[in-house]
Amino acid sequence: MKMILTASRNFIWIYALVLLAFSARADDGHDLWLRPVNAKPVKVTGVNAKSPMMGIAKKEIEQRWLGAENATVEFRIVKDPTVKTDGFKITGNAISATSESGILYGAYELLRRQQTGDLSNVISNPSYQRRILNHWDNLNGSIERGYAGNSIFWRSGDNAFTVTEKDKQLWQEYARANASIGINGSVLNNVNASAQILGADQLKRLVAIAAVLRPYGIKTYLSINFASPIGLGKLPNADPLNPEVIKWWKEKVAEIYKLVPDFGGFLVKANSEGQPGPQDYKRTHVDGANMLADALKPYNGIVMWRAFVYNASEKDRAKQAYLEFMPFDGQFRDNVIIQVKNGPIDFQPREPFSPLFGALKKTPIMPELQVTQEYLGHSEQLVFLATMWEEMFKSDTYQEGKNSTVARVTDGSIFPQKYTAIAGVSNVGLDTNWNGHEFAQANWYAYGRMAWNDQLDSKTIADEWIKLTFAPADVNNNWKNGFLEPVKKMMLESRETAVDYSMPLGLHHIFAGSHHYGPGPWWAPAGTRKDWTPPYYHQADANGIGFDRTKNGTDAVDQYHAPLAADFNNVATTPEMYLLYFHHLSWDYKMKNGKTLWDDLCSHWDSGVKQVRQYQVVWDKVEPYVDAQRFARVQEKLRRQTRDAQFWKDACILYFQQFSKRPIPDYVERPVNNLNYYMTTDPLSMKPVQQRR
Amino acid sequence: MKMILTASRNFIWIYALVLLAFSARADDGHDLWLRPVNAKPVKVTGVNAKSPMMGIAKKEIEQRWLGAENATVEFRIVKDPTVKTDGFKITGNAISATSESGILYGAYELLRRQQTGDLSNVISNPSYQRRILNHWDNLNGSIERGYAGNSIFWRSGDNAFTVTEKDKQLWQEYARANASIGINGSVLNNVNASAQILGADQLKRLVAIAAVLRPYGIKTYLSINFASPIGLGKLPNADPLNPEVIKWWKEKVAEIYKLVPDFGGFLVKANSEGQPGPQDYKRTHVDGANMLADALKPYNGIVMWRAFVYNASEKDRAKQAYLEFMPFDGQFRDNVIIQVKNGPIDFQPREPFSPLFGALKKTPIMPELQVTQEYLGHSEQLVFLATMWEEMFKSDTYQEGKNSTVARVTDGSIFPQKYTAIAGVSNVGLDTNWNGHEFAQANWYAYGRMAWNDQLDSKTIADEWIKLTFAPADVNNNWKNGFLEPVKKMMLESRETAVDYSMPLGLHHIFAGSHHYGPGPWWAPAGTRKDWTPPYYHQADANGIGFDRTKNGTDAVDQYHAPLAADFNNVATTPEMYLLYFHHLSWDYKMKNGKTLWDDLCSHWDSGVKQVRQYQVVWDKVEPYVDAQRFARVQEKLRRQTRDAQFWKDACILYFQQFSKRPIPDYVERPVNNLNYYMTTDPLSMKPVQQRR
Repeated sequence: MKMILTASRNFIWIYALVLLAFSARADDGHDLWLRPVNAKPVKVTGVNAKSPMMGIAKKEIEQRWLGAENATVEFRIVKDPTVKTDGFKITGNAISATSESGILYGAYELLRRQQTGDLSNVISNPSYQRRILNHWDNLNGSIERGYAGNSIFWRSGDNAFTVTEKDKQLWQEYARANASIGINGSVLNNVNASAQILGADQLKRLVAIAAVLRPYGIKTYLSINFASPIGLGKLPNADPLNPEVIKWWKEKVAEIYKLVPDFGGFLVKANSEGQPGPQDYKRTHVDGANMLADALKPYNGIVMWRAFVYNASEKDRAKQAYLEFMPFDGQFRDNVIIQVKNGPIDFQPREPFSPLFGALKKTPIMPELQVTQEYLGHSEQLVFLATMWEEMFKSDTYQEGKNSTVARVTDGSIFPQKYTAIAGVSNVGLDTNWNGHEFAQANWYAYGRMAWNDQLDSKTIADEWIKLTFAPADVNNNWKNGFLEPVKKMMLESRETAVDYSMPLGLHHIFAGSHHYGPGPWWAPAGTRKDWTPPYYHQADANGIGFDRTKNGTDAVDQYHAPLAADFNNVATTPEMYLLYFHHLSWDYKMKNGKTLWDDLCSHWDSGVKQVRQYQVVWDKVEPYVDAQRFARVQEKLRRQTRDAQFWKDACILYFQQFSKRPIPDYVERPVNNLNYYMTTDPLSMKPVQQRR
Repeated sequence: MKMILTASRNFIWIYALVLLAFSARADDGHDLWLRPVNAKPVKVTGVNAKSPMMGIAKKEIEQRWLGAENATVEFRIVKDPTVKTDGFKITGNAISATSESGILYGAYELLRRQQTGDLSNVISNPSYQRRILNHWDNLNGSIERGYAGNSIFWRSGDNAFTVTEKDKQLWQEYARANASIGINGSVLNNVNASAQILGADQLKRLVAIAAVLRPYGIKTYLSINFASPIGLGKLPNADPLNPEVIKWWKEKVAEIYKLVPDFGGFLVKANSEGQPGPQDYKRTHVDGANMLADALKPYNGIVMWRAFVYNASEKDRAKQAYLEFMPFDGQFRDNVIIQVKNGPIDFQPREPFSPLFGALKKTPIMPELQVTQEYLGHSEQLVFLATMWEEMFKSDTYQEGKNSTVARVTDGSIFPQKYTAIAGVSNVGLDTNWNGHEFAQANWYAYGRMAWNDQLDSKTIADEWIKLTFAPADVNNNWKNGFLEPVKKMMLESRETAVDYSMPLGLHHIFAGSHHYGPGPWWAPAGTRKDWTPPYYHQADANGIGFDRTKNGTDAVDQYHAPLAADFNNVATTPEMYLLYFHHLSWDYKMKNGKTLWDDLCSHWDSGVKQVRQYQVVWDKVEPYVDAQRFARVQEKLRRQTRDAQFWKDACILYFQQFSKRPIPDYVERPVNNLNYYMTTDPLSMKPVQQRR
């Protein structure tokens, strides 16, 4: 079995078919949170026989019913002002909704409740209308920041555009997994987009994918390259005010909607990290986004325009998106949504929320989360991201007084938006278990659940996911105390642990270059943009460490609403978890726990390592409750995580000690290699690196 | 400076001369325990101006005097039955002795006492007459089990036999270091000897070395190849009863003594691990040893005949030396000494003492200790061996009733011997600091001190060595509490720590093949002699682990005198530190602390790792008291030791868990790699190994 797990799905297809007869399918992790159950007989009524979606809902109920034997489940399409599109009401065994999609989501909810032991009635409406996965899949099949094999949508080679039964089966499994947690949109390709995505072959493939996803309520979207009119259309430029360009896009959109009438729209990364955009023609983001929005408008399509823009200027990178977009507030079409990463820098283990949240009051805005673990251990480390997202959702922007949380300023609760949406950068690939790490499945799950309900807490989600993914048929107290509780605790602590062993106390962007795995606080190859190198972010010197974003520094604090601007400006009122994000402080700065900053930094790095070691113990102890295959895979990953956490700790302590010139506290475990080793060893491959500094 | 330290002395000579002016010589560790002091003026009387030895003693006093200013030190050659050859009496500032060598040793003792703060009078006589270092130096300059560069005596190349001033200076420094701790003999070449050692060029070099060593009281010895009459003399055989062979040896010995009149004698490894010997001609060890003894007798030369013999037979290797030599007790000439390794197997981190000690009652016997750390971390790990040797010296053989310790049955206290002697396998090489690891110097020091006084305890030796090697001129309580005490504690625990992380509870011979560094409990390449493979020694299976040497097993216990034979035969009375050396026990065997054997094994491995981590903290804390160079070198070595200890722990736990099938206890830190990694990674180079199993 083991060999299979590290190979890609393509490669192992034949093996898998052979092995299917001999081993429990569940062990390979492919079933996610939808593992087969011993269903009881059930009758489903109210099914519109002509609707594929209703058919799916019915089949799910029949295949997974754990309620009373021979019960009747009633589907009801109703008019009910308390139930929004996609929403539903569960009363006993009846599911009512105003749309077929509501019935489908209700069916999954009812089944989930049976499996997790919650039998209460519920009315449930989604927080965001569009709950989208962004796939950073390239057309050659690779995935940017993908750690679970190649793309499930695209591939290179002779049969790149042949749609096989295997493709369709996989897409269907993917669609089902998404539908079961409420995800209703997929951007099929990388934001660093090829113009070729709008080519004929690619659009044909879009049609095929959309056909499989549609009955599961999932709209398809594409990332577009702003220069497509040049690359694909052979126009001389892509100036958004050029009538030829406008025409080209209108025709291309018409072509797409003819093929896929329920197409969702475009995701655009423009004038960001080298991508083309309207500024290439001295036009603005508004010019670019509105031009596309006008083309999409007749079909109810939307433009998701990313706010992740920054230049290699003297301006603090953390401030740039705000400075760029705030002047345009109110100028975008109503079918443009600005897509904003959770933090101002880039999906770091911890950042404060982006100051754009709430600040754009007349412009629809959508949060972008990263489900794939670019900076949080790829698919090698167990890091449950729900706590990070919960921290963001619950952060109060104070834009309209207290309780203007990021959740409420983006989901339409405070600023009405024609469209509400949320994006998560997917961690799905061809690996048998979809996500590389068994526990990375929990992040996909959590993203869907939080996109549906941005008030949901991480603990509830972890509890659900563990029960669905690991519980035996006969859950008892032994299992609850022996597996559920310790594993839940580990998951809930795991993100803070990762912060501890990598970038505690507000440190950010000190990772290794290129693959972003492991530490690289020294990383600054000659000729590299300063704002891409860690020393720009940690600012360590003999006096101290940290990025001064106070009024005395870059004044990034001023982009936050009162009282946050003042709180972050004052070291005494800045939450210590953001300390070095906002302040440059002496190594001897006294922390609230009485330790010096240097000692406390060392303690955090060290306790992160010790925590991961403890997770190894936790996992070893749950062995009796889990199948051998998944047990071994997670055990092996935790071994690596321990090594990697120690690599982080040792490298950071030794590197920063060069500046602090202070001893490592006694209670902190010593490095096991010299700094030179860490600086010359690639933390991902563990092989020597060529380039140093 | 750092570059120099890893290079060999030869290579760095020019650099060293250049740097000498700029850096404190002391930092490179070359001065050992004889670091320069700010000597006070002193007058020395009673010096025989014609005696080079007396001249050395005088010069040492003058260069290192820390007593009263302008004091007079009196050398007195006296007749005193309480003072043996080499012994001395210190009364105030007077040193009296019956020999010049006694004056020299007395001078070093007086200076040591001044430096370590002991000003009492003393009469001191050596425990062993011959206190010898065995150099396993090959004639091409390499050293078998040498971890500190090449040989100081031999080299290959065009100028292999040129005696340079540099050679002579180094030999003199070597001789001085030895004399200062009482060592009075050096075997200049490997026991796996080349016949060529008795060639003309080699003997000429012997003459040059002997000339430098002689004034320091050091006799030279050679290891001989028993087949030399064939290889060198062109005889058809080396049969010890062949008159031609006898004649050849007589003439060779005469030739040597003509060149070196005070030559000490021969060391012989015969019929052992492939070396030739009398058994090749169906003669016995007695035949071989006595033939050589007869040749040496006229010159008062001795034969040191090694008892380290064993065959790949069905007989327990631990029993073979005893079985081989006991029948010959009383048959050897009086100038033959049987040289016996401390334990029955081979210098393991822990073994019980060899049952030959005391058992041979009519045959002179000498202990062989290993100063070089073949099985104890080479020159990479801090392991102070004095505690191991103290354990051996103080082990009671009970041969002549209680208090028949190994010390007393070998030093002539119980069985009178014409010659008493002790051998230590040297850790000296061309490295600037002589021994590779700063703390490996302590093992050279301790060997000399214990060869002089086999009742000396490790704590006293550690205390002396630290003061001589690290104390500043102005020792105060800060230094004592901040450096001396913690470092002493670390040294005294270090061997037990090494046992813990490698071979606890009587495990032995489970190291990696060939270089003997790191774990290799699985090591058993096809075609290898079973008694050279770890599985032969640990005997792990589903039922348990350990080598059954009780009456139900190989009955090796019966080679020990009562009450030990019975004690070792009974698991309840076997000291737990020897448990798996004598017993094969169930994984669930209940230890005295209440743990199962499996849990206790895991605890030992784990606590060994934690101890080394603690040494890192200890060392970091002493930084203010030690020069930067030595601090950094030891710090780096401790980092490696921590990694290596963890490698031992992880590999052993994972390997043996395959048999025990029991969980690792909660309180034990988890492995950080899979077993396969440890089995396919060379623990010395940390690179992948080709051969597996």
